[in-house]
Amino acid sequence: MKQVQLSHGGGGEEMNRLIHDLFYKSFDNDILSSAEDAAVLKPEGNVAFTTDSFTVSPIFFNGGDIGKLAVAGTVNDLAMMGAKPLWLSSAFMIEEGLPFEELEQIVQSMAKELQKSGAKVVCGDTKVVPKGSVDKIFINTSGIGEVLVNGISAHNLEVGDAIIVSRDIGRHGAAIMMAREGIDLESDLKSDCETLWPAVEALIDAKVKIKAMRDATRGGLAAVLNEWAEASNICIEVEEEQLPVCDEVRGICEMLGFEPYDLANEGTFILAVDSADKEVALEALSKYSFCTDASVIGSVTDKKQGKVILQSSWGSNRFLELPKGELLPRIC
Amino acid sequence: MKQVQLSHGGGGEEMNRLIHDLFYKSFDNDILSSAEDAAVLKPEGNVAFTTDSFTVSPIFFNGGDIGKLAVAGTVNDLAMMGAKPLWLSSAFMIEEGLPFEELEQIVQSMAKELQKSGAKVVCGDTKVVPKGSVDKIFINTSGIGEVLVNGISAHNLEVGDAIIVSRDIGRHGAAIMMAREGIDLESDLKSDCETLWPAVEALIDAKVKIKAMRDATRGGLAAVLNEWAEASNICIEVEEEQLPVCDEVRGICEMLGFEPYDLANEGTFILAVDSADKEVALEALSKYSFCTDASVIGSVTDKKQGKVILQSSWGSNRFLELPKGELLPRIC
Repeated sequence: MKQVQLSHGGGGEEMNRLIHDLFYKSFDNDILSSAEDAAVLKPEGNVAFTTDSFTVSPIFFNGGDIGKLAVAGTVNDLAMMGAKPLWLSSAFMIEEGLPFEELEQIVQSMAKELQKSGAKVVCGDTKVVPKGSVDKIFINTSGIGEVLVNGISAHNLEVGDAIIVSRDIGRHGAAIMMAREGIDLESDLKSDCETLWPAVEALIDAKVKIKAMRDATRGGLAAVLNEWAEASNICIEVEEEQLPVCDEVRGICEMLGFEPYDLANEGTFILAVDSADKEVALEALSKYSFCTDASVIGSVTDKKQGKVILQSSWGSNRFLELPKGELLPRIC
Repeated sequence: MKQVQLSHGGGGEEMNRLIHDLFYKSFDNDILSSAEDAAVLKPEGNVAFTTDSFTVSPIFFNGGDIGKLAVAGTVNDLAMMGAKPLWLSSAFMIEEGLPFEELEQIVQSMAKELQKSGAKVVCGDTKVVPKGSVDKIFINTSGIGEVLVNGISAHNLEVGDAIIVSRDIGRHGAAIMMAREGIDLESDLKSDCETLWPAVEALIDAKVKIKAMRDATRGGLAAVLNEWAEASNICIEVEEEQLPVCDEVRGICEMLGFEPYDLANEGTFILAVDSADKEVALEALSKYSFCTDASVIGSVTDKKQGKVILQSSWGSNRFLELPKGELLPRIC
């Protein structure tokens, strides 16, 4: 079995071959293959710029792999700022001995995911490190997008706004836990890992006035809502029974003692819109298979500034806190 | 001793504190601390975009550390395209248990290096992974710069052009080898690790027509010259005795069987200019302490297209090949 060798990251002939034969071919575009020290781009107007490293373990999981995640994750951060994803960097940190076949599968998965937004990988970097210096492969992607909607911000929420979640929550966290713990629920629980740009573009096209938008990755729904409540100094009240959660995620949470709203997602976003816009937003989202469970889960009030209140189905209220502690390392 | 914990990368309260208390304070700027999913920027004209991951071992070495390297390396890739470095991303992949003091030292080193170009860290990411998943710390920085000089390219070299190296070569590779092998030459050999933008800006201000420019990192001088010879389909002839090499680097190369032109540099660049411009270029470079050994080392000819020829001091010629094999892993 062919493996990635230290020489593939050495800056010499072997690295050149890897770059030409795998990366340039898979990410096929003239900017990348011009092979200069930096890509030269011509942005129009304001741009959004973001970075994310991916260290997920295992690198292949139900619903995706580290490559799909690395593209979707960074594209989604741009989309969440109302920016059309245009250009990505792709930096591989590879452990010596990684099967070449796995690297190819990851890169092909990236190329496929890029097609969903039209973004292009225009620059990259390859490091190969000795065995034991990194576990299999880490990938960093940074991204640049053209801001189509200005002013989307965690600071924008106002009393009366509706809070929408784009789909059922907790899938990515649960799928990774299943893979890692070897849990077999005789189910087909898949990570939600997905490029969200098409759904965001549909919201923009439908003229939904998006006040705040964020994908609920590490820290889950709980982290996003708490950040918003604090940044906008408002209260967010959420009805627990409105939270879409699939049976498998609920089962894993009960088994392992987690809450679905603390679990990471990789293709699920939260939206704050003017209450008058909520039906139009749900209608726009309903066209996407990865948003079929989109739901209004709560609203912005002035009950307790800076806090998130979870209303249980039997009428009791409690604060939904920012997750604390270790959560799940290497979830993304 | 306080250590970085998994919870510092968990997306919850502890990560928020790390980000606010260390990163926002050290990289102090409004774009970063707005804490949105992506930084919103207003570029003018064409931009350059580049990425680099830093995996160097040891993380502290004579002349720098992984933080200084992570800023200088990415800033230099922008500078090499004639772009003024403006905005950087900074993504940390940290092994659980890294002493907090070391992380602080690295971040402060980044902040100090940023001042040399005026670039700002405007977005970031923090991952903490369990012991054994990464060796101490990897850092990815991506960068965006404003292209001030268009058309600098490896494809631009023409017969008659002069080839200039900005300083003595091989220091970074030699310094890392010394640190790793525990070699003590009773010398103070320092890595050349340095932000090159001020020297590049001086070349631009002096109206030097820069045809190609590249920092000689992994693969060293040999890799840059071979890439240029191939990309421009010309021959580069270099006089071995014109190559500036300090005594310590020469000594380590003799001891370990390396050649100075294969060793990595992190603050040394190669310049191809019209022969008429070479004196102006040397004069502009001479003002910078990190360019005092700048020298014309050769010229572009049509002797053997796509090849680099090394002329030894006793008159024999041989091809200077692209380095092959493992070279030195984790050099940057």
